[in-house]
Amino acid sequence: MSGRLDPATTGNQSSAKPRIAVIGLGAMGMGTARALLDAGFAVTGCDVNAEALKSFAAAGGEIADTPAQAAERASIILLVVVNADQVEQVLFGADGVIGPERARANVSARLGEQPVILQNATVPPAFAEALPEQIPAGIDMIDAPISGGAVKARAGELSVMASGSAQAFERAQPALNAMAAVVHRLGDVCGPGSSVKLVNQLLAGVHISAAAEAMALGLRMGLDAQTIYNVITASAGNSWMFENRMAHVLEGDYSPRSAVEIFVKDLGIVTQTGRDLRFPLPLSAAAQQQFTAAAAAGYGREDDSAVIKVYERLAGIQLPAAANDAAGG
Amino acid sequence: MSGRLDPATTGNQSSAKPRIAVIGLGAMGMGTARALLDAGFAVTGCDVNAEALKSFAAAGGEIADTPAQAAERASIILLVVVNADQVEQVLFGADGVIGPERARANVSARLGEQPVILQNATVPPAFAEALPEQIPAGIDMIDAPISGGAVKARAGELSVMASGSAQAFERAQPALNAMAAVVHRLGDVCGPGSSVKLVNQLLAGVHISAAAEAMALGLRMGLDAQTIYNVITASAGNSWMFENRMAHVLEGDYSPRSAVEIFVKDLGIVTQTGRDLRFPLPLSAAAQQQFTAAAAAGYGREDDSAVIKVYERLAGIQLPAAANDAAGG
Repeated sequence: MSGRLDPATTGNQSSAKPRIAVIGLGAMGMGTARALLDAGFAVTGCDVNAEALKSFAAAGGEIADTPAQAAERASIILLVVVNADQVEQVLFGADGVIGPERARANVSARLGEQPVILQNATVPPAFAEALPEQIPAGIDMIDAPISGGAVKARAGELSVMASGSAQAFERAQPALNAMAAVVHRLGDVCGPGSSVKLVNQLLAGVHISAAAEAMALGLRMGLDAQTIYNVITASAGNSWMFENRMAHVLEGDYSPRSAVEIFVKDLGIVTQTGRDLRFPLPLSAAAQQQFTAAAAAGYGREDDSAVIKVYERLAGIQLPAAANDAAGG
Repeated sequence: MSGRLDPATTGNQSSAKPRIAVIGLGAMGMGTARALLDAGFAVTGCDVNAEALKSFAAAGGEIADTPAQAAERASIILLVVVNADQVEQVLFGADGVIGPERARANVSARLGEQPVILQNATVPPAFAEALPEQIPAGIDMIDAPISGGAVKARAGELSVMASGSAQAFERAQPALNAMAAVVHRLGDVCGPGSSVKLVNQLLAGVHISAAAEAMALGLRMGLDAQTIYNVITASAGNSWMFENRMAHVLEGDYSPRSAVEIFVKDLGIVTQTGRDLRFPLPLSAAAQQQFTAAAAAGYGREDDSAVIKVYERLAGIQLPAAANDAAGG
């Protein structure tokens, strides 16, 4: 990590690591916050879930009751929340990092030196683009959606699809170094980070739904699930998601690494963006309906690979059972 | 290749290579026929296209006017044609390898010793399953759809998704060794080979269409095509097809490695199979409509990545130009 900090901008903090606030301690936020702790930062976490706070405190983190409190004296503030509404709330709510309009005069005094906010949620690009207009001068912002899942978050090996000013990147660099394996620099304003994330989520969602459709059809035709997996992962029909998620199906393990509801949401942003731009997205729309069907059937909180259970419900195919299920009966 | 031939079954041919007939000298058939020539086999090719015959003769192959003539004294007969109708015709037509029902008594006398037919087309699994019933006793058959494209066909490095009896594989082994990098053995009867191929084609078609949809949306949002490609190929949204086909889009090169019409056909088999089985396939259906739209717009004979041109027509996005186009204007 040497050589990345510019003494001219880090000032009298050049010998101390900047304080970091992590707003949102879900699977991704908790992993990232703990990776930052491992890297030696003072990290304050905040979440509405008391269990998550307790767990983070037990791991050696500081905890706070509100985003405003978590951000006190923090120079790098991560918003690892789920959607644009939550970004609004943790930034501009009564107890938000910035607070409502009437309370913004003193923001800079509350935060640490040279503060930068990283918007890590998957949000509509237009929302990300408009955010900096509402941020007081002196506070930088990076549009920085993250990708990679809970395991890579914990290991500090996320992919970040990021756009923002050179100064904002300079300020955020210590945190980015510790939380990410790859930082894609996508432009010098907020917006393109979220646009590229949306392209990725479109593909990820369609590929999971397609993997389920293909695997289910194969089972209906009488093929063996493991055989399908072995051939497809060695063929031109393969995708990152087929290989990753169909392994969950083979194991009969639908514990949520990322839940069905996440793609109901993310493909919702994709198709809403398509409607706003008057741009047809037929595959995204079809995939969104499959995740919605899975949620309707009660699988919303299961792993997103449970979208294949729509076929089990409809057409009675037999999915591989979990090892413990097989042992039990 | 040593040790694969069993002297008990190869009999007095153990020192001579079996004669091979290749029915169909399109991109895949020509490549395979030439790879077999390279491996030292006597290969007779047959095609309705006179140019293809001429080209194969120039490469050192023998040529024949009809499937029946090509198969004379051949022990291994490949059917590298486009669909089930063509398989029917080259097998059971007046000049077919087997011929019409009234002419089947003498078939074995016309063919080489211990003949085996490889069905290499993408066909409905039910069609492949029923084929052996119409083949006279003494002639073996393998359901052996191929995958990999023209370049791998020429190099003898295809993937073969194959099912058939142990005896049929024994007889076909010399050809399979020379034409394929991988032979997936999927069962001991015809049908499963075509079922697995169908699963692969479902995914391949959906992934190409999804890649086009994602890339087009990214362009519409103002992103740079090369940037999208770089980020996605390093992310969880990647697929084999995204990586391969979007490279054609970046180069503005729509010369057909595999044409749009192939996926109009293959996704047609997928959705027809779904209808026959009463099994819903919403993503396949959406992708099929996109390839159909591309064919409607006149791109049927272009590379299948030209499915992205549907968006160019509809929504005026600017696709990358070919290098020579850019130089010209």
